[in-house]
Amino acid sequence: MAVNLSAPTAEALLAVKGIRLATASAGIKKPGRQDVVLIELAEGTQTAAVYTKNAFCAAPVIVAKQHQSSEASRYLLINSGNANAGTGDVGLLAAKSCCQAVADVANVNEASVLPFSTGVIGQPLPVDKISAVLPEAYSRLSEDNWLAAAQGIMTTDTIAKAKSVQLKLDGKTITITGISKGSGMIRPDMATMLAYIATDANIEPAVLKTMLNNAMGQSFNRITVDGDTSTNDACVLMATCQAGNAEIKQISTAEGETLQEAITDVCRYLAQAIVRDGEGATKFITINVEQGQSQEECRQVAYTIAHSPLVKTASFASDPNWGRILAAVGRSGLIDFDLSGVSIFIGDVCIVESGQPENSYTEEKGQAVMAEPEITITVKLNRGDAYDQVWTCDFSYDYVKINAEYRT
Amino acid sequence: MAVNLSAPTAEALLAVKGIRLATASAGIKKPGRQDVVLIELAEGTQTAAVYTKNAFCAAPVIVAKQHQSSEASRYLLINSGNANAGTGDVGLLAAKSCCQAVADVANVNEASVLPFSTGVIGQPLPVDKISAVLPEAYSRLSEDNWLAAAQGIMTTDTIAKAKSVQLKLDGKTITITGISKGSGMIRPDMATMLAYIATDANIEPAVLKTMLNNAMGQSFNRITVDGDTSTNDACVLMATCQAGNAEIKQISTAEGETLQEAITDVCRYLAQAIVRDGEGATKFITINVEQGQSQEECRQVAYTIAHSPLVKTASFASDPNWGRILAAVGRSGLIDFDLSGVSIFIGDVCIVESGQPENSYTEEKGQAVMAEPEITITVKLNRGDAYDQVWTCDFSYDYVKINAEYRT
Repeated sequence: MAVNLSAPTAEALLAVKGIRLATASAGIKKPGRQDVVLIELAEGTQTAAVYTKNAFCAAPVIVAKQHQSSEASRYLLINSGNANAGTGDVGLLAAKSCCQAVADVANVNEASVLPFSTGVIGQPLPVDKISAVLPEAYSRLSEDNWLAAAQGIMTTDTIAKAKSVQLKLDGKTITITGISKGSGMIRPDMATMLAYIATDANIEPAVLKTMLNNAMGQSFNRITVDGDTSTNDACVLMATCQAGNAEIKQISTAEGETLQEAITDVCRYLAQAIVRDGEGATKFITINVEQGQSQEECRQVAYTIAHSPLVKTASFASDPNWGRILAAVGRSGLIDFDLSGVSIFIGDVCIVESGQPENSYTEEKGQAVMAEPEITITVKLNRGDAYDQVWTCDFSYDYVKINAEYRT
Repeated sequence: MAVNLSAPTAEALLAVKGIRLATASAGIKKPGRQDVVLIELAEGTQTAAVYTKNAFCAAPVIVAKQHQSSEASRYLLINSGNANAGTGDVGLLAAKSCCQAVADVANVNEASVLPFSTGVIGQPLPVDKISAVLPEAYSRLSEDNWLAAAQGIMTTDTIAKAKSVQLKLDGKTITITGISKGSGMIRPDMATMLAYIATDANIEPAVLKTMLNNAMGQSFNRITVDGDTSTNDACVLMATCQAGNAEIKQISTAEGETLQEAITDVCRYLAQAIVRDGEGATKFITINVEQGQSQEECRQVAYTIAHSPLVKTASFASDPNWGRILAAVGRSGLIDFDLSGVSIFIGDVCIVESGQPENSYTEEKGQAVMAEPEITITVKLNRGDAYDQVWTCDFSYDYVKINAEYRT
C-alpha cells in the first residue's frame, strides 16, 4: 500500500566504516521474525540523539538518556514487537537488564549500551528471550547488514526504510546510511519513531548535535500520520570519524554545509518514507503554508489541515472537497485572521482566491489533482513572509482495520 | 448505528406556546426530502444565540449575526443539503435573498429573519428553489411540527434529535423543547452544529443569554466526533414569555436555578445525541479528567484522548489497548507533569495506579468494560481539584465510508 516507496536493495545500502550490525530472532511477538537488532559503534564514535517529548516516555527512552549522558555509546540494542512502555519500574529494570546482557557479551560497561523498543505498549518485555539471542547476534556483526537491520525494526511498516548517500569532503569519500521505522502513532515531537543514521565523517560532538537538530526540523518533525506522538520515539545520529576528513568544527563552512545538507536529505527521505508507508496510506500529501507572520503559525495551520479526519478521508476518496480544507484553515486558531487575503490551492489548481471562490475552478480540475497519489495543498495567508511545510497521508478503511486489529 | 439513542415520537415533543414550525421540500440535494424548515417566533420572543468561532464562518452565520443584533427575531429559516459556506459574496447575497423571501411572505422586515444552512460546503445555494416553497411552508405553520423540524435539519444524521421537558415556575407550567442536528465535522467551539431550543418561560433577555452560555459549557462545548469545527455551527435559545410566570431577572433565584438546570438538561441531551449518532459511531465514550490544576488543563487532556485516532479505533474494536490512552495523556502538553501520581481507569477498572501498571489488572477485566456500548475513561492527574468532562465516539469503518462517499 505504500505510496511511491519501494524497498531498498541490500546493494544500495552502503557500509559505514566503524558500524557493524546484526539481527536475531527472539520470538518476542511472532515466532521466526528477526526482532532483535544489535548495532556496534567503533571506539571514538560520536553520538547525538533526540527522544520523544511524550511525558509517558517508555522505559528504554529513560535508560538510553541516562546512559548516553554518562558514557560514550558503543552498542545500540533495538527490539520490535514490544515497546516496554507503560511498564513502570519493572520496565526500567528490564531495559537495564537487556543492556547488561549486551555488556556481558561484548565486554563493555552497561552504560555504553543504549536500549530501544517498539511495538505493543503495556506488556512486560521478555528479557530472557532477548538475552538468549545476544551471543548469536554478537557473533554475526557485520558492516553489510543495514537492510536486515531496517527490516528488524519494523512493526506495522510494510516496507523497510533505508537510504545511503556519499559525498566528498577534503577529497575523502564520506558515507551516510540511515534506517527508520514507523507507520502509526506518528506525530513526532522533536524526534521520530525510531531512526538511526550513521556516517564515517569526522565531526566535533557539538556540531553533530546541531546537525541532528537542524535535520530534524526539516524531516521527522514535519510529519504526521495520525497526530499521536509515540512513547518510544528516538532518533540517533552516529559519526564514527573514520573517513579521514579533517574534523568539522563548524556548520558554517563549505564542508559543514555540504555534510548538513546530505544528512538532512537522508533524514527527509526516511521521514517521508514513514508517511508514504503510513498505516493504510494510499496518498502522500504535502501541505505548504506560506505568507504567515511566523513559522509557528504556518505550522499550526499546516498541522490542523494534516490532522483533519475529514480532509484525510476526502483525500482517500480522491474527492476535491475543498470546503473541508477551508474549514480546517478557519478553525486553526490564528489571531486577527483576515480571510479576504487568503488563497488556497490543490496542486496548481486555485480553489480560493483572496477569500472568494476562484471563478474558473471546476470539479474536473479539482478531481484531476486529487486523483494523483501525491497531493500538494498550499495555503497563502497573505500576512507575512514566513513559511512551513508538513507531510501526511490519507485516512483509509485500512487505517481503521490495522488499528482495530493490531493486538489480535 | 446510533449508540443507545432512539428516535423521538411526535407525542413526546411538546408544543411551546408562541412557536410554530413547518417543513417543505425544495429538492436542494435530493428530491422529495423535507429540506427547508421555517420556525415562527411570536412577537415578544427573546432570542439568544451562539455561533461558530471558525474564521471561515458561513454566509448565513454572518447574516444571522447582523440581523440578530439589529432587530427582534421573528422567523428562523433553516435549510439542509447545502451549507452556503465558502461561497464568498455570492453566498452572502443568497442568504439575504432567502431572508427577504420569508419577509415577503410573512410581511415582516428582512432583518427579523435569521438564516441557517447545513450540508455540503462550497456550492451555490439554490435561492429560487428555497423561495418557491416558502408560501407553502408559511401556510402550514403549526405548534405541533417539532418532530418534522428535527427531521428536516438532518444531514448525515441517522436519527432525529429532540427533547421536551416540563417544569413548574410560580405554579405555571413551563415547557422547553429543543432540536439539534450534527454527526460529523463536530467539535463545537462555543456553539454546535445546529440546535434550536424554545421555552415559553418569561425571562429577561440578559438572563436568557447567560443561561444559554451556562448550558453550552455543559453540553455542546463538551462534545467531539472528529475534532473538526464546522463553518456553520449555531445554537439558538428562544423564550416566548407566554407561560405566565413572573419574569426571571436573575439566575441566582430558586426559579432561575430550576430553569437553568432544565435548559442545561435539554442541551446536554441534544449534545450527547449528536455524539451517539456520530458518523459511524458504535460506542459512546465519556472522558473524565479529575484532580487537575485548572478546568482548562483537564479539558486539554480530555480532548487529546477524545481526538486520538488510536484510542478511537481501539474503542471500535472493544480492545482495552490502554497504552494508547496513556500515550495520549502523555502528549497532551501539561507543564511540569509528574506521572508518579497519575491514575487511569476504564469504567471502574484501574489500569494505571500512581504512574505504575495496576497489579490486579487483567485483559479480561479491560475487555469486559470495553465491550460495552458506553465506555467511561477516567484520568486522575493528582495535582489539583479541577475537573472536566467531554463526550466522544469511536472511529469505525463506517466513519471512513461516510466521509469518503459524502458527495457521491
